[in-house]
Amino acid sequence: MARLVLKFGGTSVGDVARIRRVAERVKPLYDAGHEIAVVVSAMAGTTNQLVAYTREAALIHDAREYDTVVAAGEQITVGLLAICLQDMEVPARSFLGWQIPIHASNVHGAARIESIETETLEACFAQGRVAVVAGFQGLADDGRIATLGRGGSDTSAVALAAALKADRCDIYTDVTGVFTTDPRVEAKARKLDRITYEEMLEMASQGAKVLQTRSVAMAMAHGVRVQVLSTFADEPGTLVVSEEEIVENQIVSGIAFSRGEAKITVVNLEDRPGAVSALFKPLAGEHINVDMIVQSASDDGASADVTFTVPEDSLSRAVELIQSHKDSLGFSDLVYTGDVVKVSVIGVGMRSHAGVASTMFEALAEKGINIHVISTSEIKVSVLINSEYTELAVRTLHSAYGLDAPSRIADVEEAIA
Amino acid sequence: MARLVLKFGGTSVGDVARIRRVAERVKPLYDAGHEIAVVVSAMAGTTNQLVAYTREAALIHDAREYDTVVAAGEQITVGLLAICLQDMEVPARSFLGWQIPIHASNVHGAARIESIETETLEACFAQGRVAVVAGFQGLADDGRIATLGRGGSDTSAVALAAALKADRCDIYTDVTGVFTTDPRVEAKARKLDRITYEEMLEMASQGAKVLQTRSVAMAMAHGVRVQVLSTFADEPGTLVVSEEEIVENQIVSGIAFSRGEAKITVVNLEDRPGAVSALFKPLAGEHINVDMIVQSASDDGASADVTFTVPEDSLSRAVELIQSHKDSLGFSDLVYTGDVVKVSVIGVGMRSHAGVASTMFEALAEKGINIHVISTSEIKVSVLINSEYTELAVRTLHSAYGLDAPSRIADVEEAIA
Repeated sequence: MARLVLKFGGTSVGDVARIRRVAERVKPLYDAGHEIAVVVSAMAGTTNQLVAYTREAALIHDAREYDTVVAAGEQITVGLLAICLQDMEVPARSFLGWQIPIHASNVHGAARIESIETETLEACFAQGRVAVVAGFQGLADDGRIATLGRGGSDTSAVALAAALKADRCDIYTDVTGVFTTDPRVEAKARKLDRITYEEMLEMASQGAKVLQTRSVAMAMAHGVRVQVLSTFADEPGTLVVSEEEIVENQIVSGIAFSRGEAKITVVNLEDRPGAVSALFKPLAGEHINVDMIVQSASDDGASADVTFTVPEDSLSRAVELIQSHKDSLGFSDLVYTGDVVKVSVIGVGMRSHAGVASTMFEALAEKGINIHVISTSEIKVSVLINSEYTELAVRTLHSAYGLDAPSRIADVEEAIA
Repeated sequence: MARLVLKFGGTSVGDVARIRRVAERVKPLYDAGHEIAVVVSAMAGTTNQLVAYTREAALIHDAREYDTVVAAGEQITVGLLAICLQDMEVPARSFLGWQIPIHASNVHGAARIESIETETLEACFAQGRVAVVAGFQGLADDGRIATLGRGGSDTSAVALAAALKADRCDIYTDVTGVFTTDPRVEAKARKLDRITYEEMLEMASQGAKVLQTRSVAMAMAHGVRVQVLSTFADEPGTLVVSEEEIVENQIVSGIAFSRGEAKITVVNLEDRPGAVSALFKPLAGEHINVDMIVQSASDDGASADVTFTVPEDSLSRAVELIQSHKDSLGFSDLVYTGDVVKVSVIGVGMRSHAGVASTMFEALAEKGINIHVISTSEIKVSVLINSEYTELAVRTLHSAYGLDAPSRIADVEEAIA
């Protein structure tokens, strides 16, 4: 008997028929004697509708009222799933954030889970019941509902698994697991059986939209074993675990890419102490997330070009902000484009293997792909390239690091024919 | 400065634009310095959608989960109204049933309000804020949300007005007040300035769908002054008050009618002690509401015909039930029809005036309308007639009791021309 937390996202509970299918996934696990908490999101589309209502009511609005409105989405789903489970003779009951309670910070609309009281859920398990828990929401200490921000249901599930000391947290999605890269870009992408938290964190934050970054960080911090698997396919998914649980380390586990990037170059920024700091401070003040940064000294030594990336949807704000400080910063020109993509190779094996970066640069150079910016971490090398090269770069790197799935016999026969 | 509870129903908050209009109704009252709690229903259509979801999930389902799902409707509205009010610079915050709390019984899906804690709302008033309260919901002592049953928001508002010792409870609807009869049937119907609780109770339970019966009974019990008025028209409505507040008593205040009736006649029921009790006991056991009853002895004295009414939607169940007891009851035949309507004349003045009933019978006889069943109370005379005579009967009685509005000059001039 294991204790499991299962999480189903919005598309998995998109209508009542799908909620029944979720119940059908839960039932055999319950029948096998497991203790189960199911965390659910709002029905697909519901959250968007509720968010649209709040915006229609007032563009700028009280985050506490926003939370009250939006949290209704998950409330609907938990009740419906409990009803479907009961209808299949699985004793179940729903829990809202305030009923457990899941304590959350007062940062309404983007709250953090602070603690989860487990007595209520332990009692539910002791009665042999499945607990159906509303994701994405908690109770702030102002006595009001706080939501965790978009995608927060993954975080709810992992936090619950940590609090309940669950054996595993299964995140059901519309993909069958974590792949070496996006299969829509590279058909030879392979599903990974296991991946480390660190790699998953890079994959998630680099644009592989399988798991919320926050939830992976929380799983890593609490050692929660997470499985990513499909609601609709009956096959094992990808286990996200600590490095010790990985038997065989590949040097590179996957290729991630992120399209929503924009590049800004500040030309001839005065080369004086504090110049770069003066450039980035106003951006930080406006919560614009600066990612990759390179500085290249100019020939005269009196000025430098600084290039960096920001999320594409922050580009116009960032440019305006820098322009407004032009006099104090002292630069000659501002060049920017949203037409770039960040491609990353990720793998914990890099730590002990040299040459990973140079393989990347060579492979891209061979295809004539120009690299604008490079950034590296212990387990990742990222490059910024023109977006038109995205697919070519991903496929090139996927092959260069030996990630391609072995050709299927059918493919070979097709090639011969 | 007064303390007011305002209640807006589903059509008044049917979309965000309408919720803004509700906020515009509240603002001048706030600006005038009143203390205000606003009780709202779910957006029109939302509750039906949520109820449909629960039925799709399972026809027979846990009422506690039903409540969790359905209560989301009011949760959405309170947040949106608070946002709209804030946007008009009216400080406001939303309250859900569990946040106040409004304590409700454990009869999920049809709970009763047991008590309302007022500290939270008093504090809200003390801060100069408008409280926006979710109608229709409370917190049961099992720690879960309980809903009050359809139309329960009126009851929420009146209960809140009683708990807060409000000066008045204004129920905003899509009509401008309580009329002497349904203006769609009799164009000469007049809006009443005042009506007593007792009359309103009869009007409501007799089919004038302006106010929920439960809420009127509660208002009467707690002496809450209720005003029924229109969300969309800027004119005073009808005050529902105690008899002492009525300056001039009309003998008859209004004509109500109820279409959803069905008549059953049990022919030749054995005339022995306990026979009638044996007939109605199984109906009560199935919660079928028996209303008007007449018994007529047959010529031989050994049997009697018993005629009574049930709600039309209970007719088939009632007939089946009686048929299934045919042997033990001992009767020769069962005759039934849904093709009947109950018409009532209502007025507290009846207590001190004789002849009200005979006026009714004469007026109907004059038009050739046959009366099947009669029932009376202190302030009401009801008759059951064939439904094809509904409009004729209502108009005839409206005129017979002098309720017709004086002809407008325009009408007279039109008649001359």
